[in-house]
Amino acid sequence: MSLIQKLAGFARSPVAATPAVAQMIRLSAFDWAACALAGQDEPVARHLRDIARAEGGRPDASLIGGGKAPARAAALVNGATSHALDYDDTHFAHIGHPSVAIFPAVLAVAERNGASLDDILDAALIGAETSIRVGLWLGRGHYQIGFHQTATAGAFGAAAAIARLNGLDHTTTEHAFGLATTKAAGLKSQFGTMGKPLNAGLAAECGVMAVDWALAGLCSTPNALDGVNGFGPTHHGADDLSAFGGMGTTWLFEDVSHKFHACCHGLHAMLEALRDVENMPERLVIATHPRWMTVCNIDAPKTGLETKFSYKMTAAMALSGINTSAISSFTDDLGARADLQDIMTRISVTPDDSLSETQARIDADGKIITHDLSAPIPLSERETRLKSKAAALTPKAEPLWTALQSGDITTIRAALFG
Amino acid sequence: MSLIQKLAGFARSPVAATPAVAQMIRLSAFDWAACALAGQDEPVARHLRDIARAEGGRPDASLIGGGKAPARAAALVNGATSHALDYDDTHFAHIGHPSVAIFPAVLAVAERNGASLDDILDAALIGAETSIRVGLWLGRGHYQIGFHQTATAGAFGAAAAIARLNGLDHTTTEHAFGLATTKAAGLKSQFGTMGKPLNAGLAAECGVMAVDWALAGLCSTPNALDGVNGFGPTHHGADDLSAFGGMGTTWLFEDVSHKFHACCHGLHAMLEALRDVENMPERLVIATHPRWMTVCNIDAPKTGLETKFSYKMTAAMALSGINTSAISSFTDDLGARADLQDIMTRISVTPDDSLSETQARIDADGKIITHDLSAPIPLSERETRLKSKAAALTPKAEPLWTALQSGDITTIRAALFG
Repeated sequence: MSLIQKLAGFARSPVAATPAVAQMIRLSAFDWAACALAGQDEPVARHLRDIARAEGGRPDASLIGGGKAPARAAALVNGATSHALDYDDTHFAHIGHPSVAIFPAVLAVAERNGASLDDILDAALIGAETSIRVGLWLGRGHYQIGFHQTATAGAFGAAAAIARLNGLDHTTTEHAFGLATTKAAGLKSQFGTMGKPLNAGLAAECGVMAVDWALAGLCSTPNALDGVNGFGPTHHGADDLSAFGGMGTTWLFEDVSHKFHACCHGLHAMLEALRDVENMPERLVIATHPRWMTVCNIDAPKTGLETKFSYKMTAAMALSGINTSAISSFTDDLGARADLQDIMTRISVTPDDSLSETQARIDADGKIITHDLSAPIPLSERETRLKSKAAALTPKAEPLWTALQSGDITTIRAALFG
Repeated sequence: MSLIQKLAGFARSPVAATPAVAQMIRLSAFDWAACALAGQDEPVARHLRDIARAEGGRPDASLIGGGKAPARAAALVNGATSHALDYDDTHFAHIGHPSVAIFPAVLAVAERNGASLDDILDAALIGAETSIRVGLWLGRGHYQIGFHQTATAGAFGAAAAIARLNGLDHTTTEHAFGLATTKAAGLKSQFGTMGKPLNAGLAAECGVMAVDWALAGLCSTPNALDGVNGFGPTHHGADDLSAFGGMGTTWLFEDVSHKFHACCHGLHAMLEALRDVENMPERLVIATHPRWMTVCNIDAPKTGLETKFSYKMTAAMALSGINTSAISSFTDDLGARADLQDIMTRISVTPDDSLSETQARIDADGKIITHDLSAPIPLSERETRLKSKAAALTPKAEPLWTALQSGDITTIRAALFG
């Protein structure tokens, strides 16, 4: 059986999501929506929205930030918009951001088709799980040479989700995957440019287009992922078929990671550890994996952007009660604040190669706290924290949460696009 | 200087096309249009046209086969339509089909912008030359592993052409190329499926979208082709910078090859040699490069499609005066014709490794004729043969030629889209 045949089977199979993974996809939908709303005024979002509005066409699907467009265009715009702040969820095995490729595609086609919230979450879960498995199958070499799994593996996840949402038969699903192989693209060379969020939009767009093509009658080949001249061999894929072990019964999506701080991921373990420090310490020693020392250890940041890569400044912010979840906290004037400067003089940062990349250890006047980002967070705590993060991102957080609880898709759409 | 910086310079430079290359781009425009018109009823063309018509949007550009769509969509539809029959031009150094990626993009944007025929041909030449040079830079390894240069190198050619047509400044042109690197895609695994002509459409679409994005304000990086994580290193590119030697003064496009027979390229050298056989021979011996023996040597073809891969049957057709330029000649009933069967009994095919892949040698009752497809054809003869080919493809060949000679873009558009 070719890999496309296997994925087509998964995309069409009845699945029994565990309560935990069902709750995780719902939380990711909420977190994705908050990130998208917060990103709507970023230049990349505005520019792509302007193009879609100018191009026009059948108003099947809503754009974050207002207006309607064909589903294809909405998937592109909303995908890029939701990744513009780089604050959306991450899956470390996938080596990418699953939600920004999946939800924009699913929501656009669901609006066109009149699908329910249950249908949306079901399709999104299958899509996200597919993208994670494909990302794992492509492997680290694919990422290291320069492909952006969010875009590449994400495109196949989006195709799976949209095929399921449309109830495609097996053969048509195979054609959709086959056609997606010849369109899926996205490079890491775009990191640091608007091309990065664009990549997320391209993945979502690919899923919508590949299924539309297959539905219209375009055909492809079921060997196009793992066969000769297929996507895997051409794109430096590791072809690790163990990536698909247990697919349909175990859910890798359950390990998805949500960002709780609007700064470099290398700072998050430290910021989590600081949550357990109650009083302002005289001395704070931060120990971190050596890799991060050259990534996010700017000693005296001068701008808000530099602050996002500074152990000392973000620690000083956290100890001062500044909300590191809020994008708006990272202002250019932090470096001039005497109170923060004073705290920073009491902080030191040291590399420790006994720590993993997801760990940090702090010593606050002798109180030692170690935090590991890969440790599971209870669902109730995750929910609380995601609601708090969303509230810091957008005034629509509360109505969005309420709408999501109601299950009524019209109310949800009003909260998200209204 | 990065490769994108170099290509942006070429896309914006004043060029002095020689009369010969200026005539070649004009002939390729005509040949491309005839192939596109002949392909308009193929399933891939109909399906993609249906999608574009249903999606709607600003009617900026005409579709082959009728209707209007945004330039992006027209480039996609017309690109796939013109490659549907695989009868369009080829460039062996590029390892691809230049015109099907370039003309659909240029014509769509020219219609949107109100550009003249001179502007169109100027932009198309720069685009085609860019795609050939980039194809050569990517090299044979890129093709062998499974990438389709028509789609990948073609996307950069289309971006160059559209950047020039829009008069982009240098920096915006760089951004357009940078954005094209993260979208350009297309795999050889699609060969034999509708994904192959789709690839040509995707290349044309990429050029239009990348320039629209850059014009709207999206930015990328000038290192995205040859830098770390760039398109070349990620896509098995050979990085052969000699591919750009003489760019701007010598024109590789001048070596473009036009198909004169509606069948496998492996048969063309033999069919050309047979043009010099005046009377029906008693015995015909065909010698060909050994590679072709497993590609197009079906001994007793039963369908029109099989005939396209048969030395004996196509030789019998040519000797009987059947027009091998016409798609409509390759019918399923040829195999049942006694006259052709009789001729085929007098024909034998033999491999000869002293011949190159572009050569064939025939022995017709002792008269020896060798033909090499890579030998130049005088422009006047090429023109005559392309007009004859076009006449066999579409009833619009004559008005299209006349319109092209008039230079009036409205008349040309009426002939092509009317």
